[in-house]
Amino acid sequence: MAAGPPRGPLAGLRILEIGHFVAAPFCTRLLADLGADVIKIEPPTGDPVRQWGAQCNGHSLWWSVHGRNKRSVTLDLKHPKAPEILLKMIARCDALVENLRPGHLDKLQLGVDRLRAAKPDLVIAHISGFGQSGPYRDRAAFGVIGEAMGGLRYLTNHDPEESDLPPVRAGISIGDSIAGLYAAFGVLAGLWNRDRGTGTGRVQSIDVALTESVFSLMEGMLAEYSVLGLVRQPVGSRIATTAPSSAYPTKDGRWLVIAANSDRLCARLLEAIGQPHLAADGRFADNATRLQNVKALDAVIAGWTRERSIVEAEDLLVAADIPCCKAYTIADCATDPQFIARGMVQDVYDDNLGAMLHPGIVPHVPDNPGRIRWPGPAIGAHTREVLQELAGLGTEEIDRLGEYGVI
Amino acid sequence: MAAGPPRGPLAGLRILEIGHFVAAPFCTRLLADLGADVIKIEPPTGDPVRQWGAQCNGHSLWWSVHGRNKRSVTLDLKHPKAPEILLKMIARCDALVENLRPGHLDKLQLGVDRLRAAKPDLVIAHISGFGQSGPYRDRAAFGVIGEAMGGLRYLTNHDPEESDLPPVRAGISIGDSIAGLYAAFGVLAGLWNRDRGTGTGRVQSIDVALTESVFSLMEGMLAEYSVLGLVRQPVGSRIATTAPSSAYPTKDGRWLVIAANSDRLCARLLEAIGQPHLAADGRFADNATRLQNVKALDAVIAGWTRERSIVEAEDLLVAADIPCCKAYTIADCATDPQFIARGMVQDVYDDNLGAMLHPGIVPHVPDNPGRIRWPGPAIGAHTREVLQELAGLGTEEIDRLGEYGVI
Repeated sequence: MAAGPPRGPLAGLRILEIGHFVAAPFCTRLLADLGADVIKIEPPTGDPVRQWGAQCNGHSLWWSVHGRNKRSVTLDLKHPKAPEILLKMIARCDALVENLRPGHLDKLQLGVDRLRAAKPDLVIAHISGFGQSGPYRDRAAFGVIGEAMGGLRYLTNHDPEESDLPPVRAGISIGDSIAGLYAAFGVLAGLWNRDRGTGTGRVQSIDVALTESVFSLMEGMLAEYSVLGLVRQPVGSRIATTAPSSAYPTKDGRWLVIAANSDRLCARLLEAIGQPHLAADGRFADNATRLQNVKALDAVIAGWTRERSIVEAEDLLVAADIPCCKAYTIADCATDPQFIARGMVQDVYDDNLGAMLHPGIVPHVPDNPGRIRWPGPAIGAHTREVLQELAGLGTEEIDRLGEYGVI
Repeated sequence: MAAGPPRGPLAGLRILEIGHFVAAPFCTRLLADLGADVIKIEPPTGDPVRQWGAQCNGHSLWWSVHGRNKRSVTLDLKHPKAPEILLKMIARCDALVENLRPGHLDKLQLGVDRLRAAKPDLVIAHISGFGQSGPYRDRAAFGVIGEAMGGLRYLTNHDPEESDLPPVRAGISIGDSIAGLYAAFGVLAGLWNRDRGTGTGRVQSIDVALTESVFSLMEGMLAEYSVLGLVRQPVGSRIATTAPSSAYPTKDGRWLVIAANSDRLCARLLEAIGQPHLAADGRFADNATRLQNVKALDAVIAGWTRERSIVEAEDLLVAADIPCCKAYTIADCATDPQFIARGMVQDVYDDNLGAMLHPGIVPHVPDNPGRIRWPGPAIGAHTREVLQELAGLGTEEIDRLGEYGVI
C-alpha cells in the first residue's frame, strides 16, 4: 500500500511501544489509527502475537490488523548496546507504552529514571495484569485471570438453575482490549496535562491493570454490595431488571436478539407474533409482572421464533419496529450495510496476504479521519529508517549493529 | 464529603455533558475521575439512570458512582429560553459529550453550527447506537442490540454441541461502557489536536457508535474471514487455540478459573492434582494434542476441583504456581487484598446513603492521581453556582428561570 502522510487528530504525536501480545499493541493501534507515529520495538524473533490466530502462507491475519500503521524496529533489549539506542529514540518521543512484567524495564537498564533523563516530560503507560504495586504485582498475567478477578466471568453465565455448564468466556481478549483502551485514554490525559494542565504534577506515569480495567465496568455493584449486601448474580441471556430481553432460537439454528423491554414494545411484539391478547394478560402487563413470569414470556416468544428462519423472523419484527437483530457472526458484520456505509469494513492490500478486509477506525472523526496507511509490517521493516531518523545513526553504524545481533 | 480542589491530570479541563443512561455519563465519569470539571445538564426530572439498579431510601446506589465528581445543572432543553443559556456555558467549555438520538441536538436549536459559533474550537463527542450516519442511524439504540451487531453476543456462548441455551449477555452494560471509553479517548485526541496537532483540520467532532466500539475488539476475525472464509465460533468457557483454560466446578458450588495453557504449566498442574503420569500421556503432551482431547483433559481437572472447596482448590494451585483464581463475585472484589492495596475499594460518604464503597479510579496515575471529590449529586445541586459562574447570570435572573420552569 502507498502510505501517504499521516492523517487524523493525532498526526504529529510519536509513541514508542515496548509491547507484546495484546494489551499494549492494541493501545498503540488505537493511537496509530488516529495518526500517531507508533514505533514498535521487537526482538529479532518478533512479537509472539505474530504467531497467534489463523495463518495464511505463514503470516498471521490478526497481525495484519494488530500491527497496522506502526513502524517495526528490531532491537534486542537484552543486548548491552540496546539501552543507549533506545534512549536516543525515546528522547524524540512523546510517550512510551509498555506491557512487560512489572520491574522488567529496570532489569533492562531502562528504568523510569533513565527514561526521564533522556526525555524529562515523557508520558509512560505501564500495562500489566494486576498493576505496578501490591501483593499480586509479580504474578503471571493471563487475560482470563484478569477478567475473572475483575468480576466479568462470574456474571457471564446462565442462572445455575438452568445450567451446570461453566461461566462463559466472552470469546475475545476483552480484558486486554479494555486495558489497552484505558491506556490510550491515560496517555492522552498525561499529554494534555503536559501541554495544558493546571494540575500540580507534570510528570505522568500511567499504571493500568487488566483486573482494574474490567472491574471499573461493574456499574453500581460495589456500592450495592457495601450498602445492601447485594451480590449481583448471572442471568444468562436476559437482563435482571427488565423483560423481555434475550436471544431466541430460530428454525435454522440461529439466535435472534430481541429487546422489547418496555410496555409499549412488549405489546407491539406480542401483536407481531400473533398473540395480541397476551398484552392484557396479568402476567405480562408491566415490567414487574413480566420479570416474575419471564420464563413463560420467553417461551411464548421462542415458540414463535423457532418456527421461522432468522431472515424471516428478523424481517417481520423489524417491520413491526421491534428492536432486534440476529447475533452477528463475523460474516454478518462483513456484509452489514451499516458497517459498510460507515467505513467499518475496509479493503486493504497486504503484500503477504493479498486483498483482504480490515475493520475501520474507531472512533470516527469526520472532520479529520484517521486511515489505514499500511497493514502490519514485517519484523524490523523500519529498523534502518527509524535508527537514522530518531537515533541519528549512520549506515555503517547500523550495519555493525546488525552484525553484533543488536538489531 | 469535603470537595477540595480538583486533582489529577485533567484538572483545568471543562466538559459539558448532555447525556443520559450509560454511555455518555460513563465517558464523563472517566474524565471527571481524572480531574476534569464535568457539568452534567439534566432535565428537571433528572437523568432516568438515577432510577436504575438497586435503591436505598429512594436513592440509586449506581448513581452515587455514575454521577460522582460531576456538577449537576438542571435545564429543560425543550424550553425556548434554554439554548441561549446553554450556549453561554458552552463558550466556557473545552468539549461537549452527548448521547441524544442523532439529529436531536438540531431539534433543540443546538446544532453543531450554533455550538461552534459559541465556541469555535469546541470538541464534540456524539455517542449513539449506530453512528451519526448510514441507514441504521435513526434506529432505537439498545445496548444488547449494539453488542449483538458488534459480534460479541454470538461468541459469548457454549459450543452448540454442549448446550442449547441461548448465548449469554456479559451481565453488564459492556457495549455502552466501551463506547464511553472510546469517546473519552476521542475527546482527548480532539483536544490534543486543538492544542498541539500538526494535522490539517482543527475542528473536531467525534462520532462513536456502540456497534463499532464492540466490533473494534474482534481481534483478527474480519481479516481471517476475508482471506480464509473462517467464521469464529463460540467455545464456551475455553479458548479455541490453547488448553487447558477454563472454569472448573468446586464442591461448594463455585467456579475456579485455571489457565495452565502451556506445556510447562499443564505438567505442573497435572502433578499438583495428583496425576503426574498424565503429563507423559500422548493425549496431553503438547498444545495440539491437548486441544484434540480437551474434553478428557477438562474432565480430569474438574474431577479434582469437584472434590474440593474453592478455598482449598485455589490455595493448592496457587501454592503450585498455577495461574488460577475463583470467578470473583462483587463480594470477592470488595475484599481482595490487591484491589484494597491499590485503592480500588474506596470508602465514600454519601449524604443520602451513608458510608459506602466506591470503585477506585482507573487508570491509576501515581504522580498525580485523580480522586473521588463527591458522590453523585442531587438533581440540579450545582445549577445556581454554574449559571452564575459560566453563564454570568445574576441571582434574580436565576430566580426567574426557576419560576418559568427553565431550570
